Amino acid sequence: MIYLDNAATGGFKPYAVRSAVNAAMKVCANPGRSGHRLSLAAAEHVLSCRNLLSDVFGGYGFERCVFTKSCTEALNIAILGVLEEGDHVVATALEHNSVLRPLQYLAEKGVITYDIAPLKDGILEPETIAACVKHKTRLVCVTAASNVTGTSCDLKKLKKLLPEHVLLLVDGAQGAGHIPISMRDMGIDMLALAGHKGLHAIQIGALLFSQRVDPRPLLFGGTGSESMNLSQPSFYPDRLESGTLSYPAVCSLFEGLLIVKSTKKTETYALTKALSEAVKGLPSYEIFSPPNACGVFSFRHKSMPSEELAAALSEKFDIAVRGGLHCAPLAHEALGTSPDGLVRASFSVFQGMREANALFHALRALS
Amino acid sequence: MIYLDNAATGGFKPYAVRSAVNAAMKVCANPGRSGHRLSLAAAEHVLSCRNLLSDVFGGYGFERCVFTKSCTEALNIAILGVLEEGDHVVATALEHNSVLRPLQYLAEKGVITYDIAPLKDGILEPETIAACVKHKTRLVCVTAASNVTGTSCDLKKLKKLLPEHVLLLVDGAQGAGHIPISMRDMGIDMLALAGHKGLHAIQIGALLFSQRVDPRPLLFGGTGSESMNLSQPSFYPDRLESGTLSYPAVCSLFEGLLIVKSTKKTETYALTKALSEAVKGLPSYEIFSPPNACGVFSFRHKSMPSEELAAALSEKFDIAVRGGLHCAPLAHEALGTSPDGLVRASFSVFQGMREANALFHALRALS
Repeated sequence: MIYLDNAATGGFKPYAVRSAVNAAMKVCANPGRSGHRLSLAAAEHVLSCRNLLSDVFGGYGFERCVFTKSCTEALNIAILGVLEEGDHVVATALEHNSVLRPLQYLAEKGVITYDIAPLKDGILEPETIAACVKHKTRLVCVTAASNVTGTSCDLKKLKKLLPEHVLLLVDGAQGAGHIPISMRDMGIDMLALAGHKGLHAIQIGALLFSQRVDPRPLLFGGTGSESMNLSQPSFYPDRLESGTLSYPAVCSLFEGLLIVKSTKKTETYALTKALSEAVKGLPSYEIFSPPNACGVFSFRHKSMPSEELAAALSEKFDIAVRGGLHCAPLAHEALGTSPDGLVRASFSVFQGMREANALFHALRALS
Repeated sequence: MIYLDNAATGGFKPYAVRSAVNAAMKVCANPGRSGHRLSLAAAEHVLSCRNLLSDVFGGYGFERCVFTKSCTEALNIAILGVLEEGDHVVATALEHNSVLRPLQYLAEKGVITYDIAPLKDGILEPETIAACVKHKTRLVCVTAASNVTGTSCDLKKLKKLLPEHVLLLVDGAQGAGHIPISMRDMGIDMLALAGHKGLHAIQIGALLFSQRVDPRPLLFGGTGSESMNLSQPSFYPDRLESGTLSYPAVCSLFEGLLIVKSTKKTETYALTKALSEAVKGLPSYEIFSPPNACGVFSFRHKSMPSEELAAALSEKFDIAVRGGLHCAPLAHEALGTSPDGLVRASFSVFQGMREANALFHALRALS
């Protein structure tokens, strides 16, 4: 199989990642709950992973880095755990349902209002987002890279256009590991991450946040700290981390981050550029993603539904891609590809022209 | 090392479990998000795991079985996602902070009130719990087995004493895999489970629930279903499962459950009984757990703090146990062991007299 569904879940887990999971399954102590040497060693490694995350993403130290089960949970904490009655939010047309659905939930309850910054000719501009900001705007949510187009806007420029009191939440699910993200350089207040895509880990998420924001917990429970206290501890990371962490997942993320740190040059931009140029020569197809470092290549066949094309690629060519709406309904509305959606091929940093060629030849055969 | 901290995290992961995680790391497709064969195969296996969970715990089918990151998340859904303004709750003195802290949070917000059913001579009686039920009581929360004493009350008897409209939530974190739990036989409405203890898996949780209850989601996001809908889907399991599931964790749980199903007889009860009898001969120690199938053996030294004794066992004898309060403050208050707590040795079903003897000899040397 040629696996081009890396934007859903990274298909190839490097040896160091798999090996770390195996080692963690042999150790299997509960980090930070007990005082014996295995538990202490696990707790120390968890701390190292927080520090590494903060280092890789220009964060605000280990206390401001919490592990979650997924980027979705991280985004929920950043939205449901931060917004207050009467707040206004600006999100963009490129956002995933993991941002839109928490916002919609709060809006339906009458807690917040929100506006969606539109695309202009398929492009998200910082100025368009900033123009949606109102007096009551507390939060701007923007993806580091759309899971449909592989692109977003210039985050640093966006930050400069926002009033000082507005918090900037960045959804790093797709971008992290592909494009440079630094919270300090870009003025990001909250960064939500998915471990299982560009960070090469198994399923885990993280929320990094600055001292400008104090997220409230969504879940309550044992933290291994202040056990006599029936209320949640007030300090981070414990406040947001109830229940035993997945030590194998943390270990996998640590190794994945080391690989991200040492990977200097990738082919993903070149691949999507080459594919764009080649597929432009096939008149049955329309392309909706510009060349991008995320390795996302989205297209449709002028006379074949996206799910049907995706199924044909799987069945006839054993190429795994994803059709449909990719949990990003407003992006497809903005691109004019709703409700049928697009086919998305997504490359990892470990792939090259061999995979791109295979996709091109399959598309030519199906055109 | 002799690992006797299995009530924190099961120390030994069977070959089939580790092997399943490895296979999942090689496949690495996103279950249920795409239409290619890897994604479809993963989705099918996730469904099998739901069915197996429902089978093992006498549940209500795959739709009423949701995966969570932990038993803590499952308990939070069962409490925060079910209770409504004005409800009264009864919990017990044996409950973990993963039950107590969500209740305390709702109580501090003025949403609910709750009472704690006390122990009588260290024992939890169904009659004592039922006596706390009021007109407005909506939920009774009780552990299947305390993480401090290894015991609880007769759940079937408790259910018979409760009014029809009262929901019964059982915390299966410690009990599952050690003692038989059947939702249908025992009249349990919601059962929260931890994968990483008696179920032999890596970190994952689950909430099983009957048709009598419709938990609201705590997290919102992509479900791979109804992508055009900005609101959360209304059907289960999708309604409670936003974000990509951890496929390696689900696979590990599947294998762990098969082992639980095929394990007919274990030594854990005999071990704690033998230890109790032997340690009773050492006058420096007091024992606080009755013999139990959970394999929990809790004790203290009359003149040494619990954390100090735990550290001595680790440093001098390389025996891993857990001192302190075990995130169950009311249990220790009820037992009169607060604030210093107890030392808890906890055995897995894979352990036997060798480990129990090692602990006894160490305790004798330290007495």
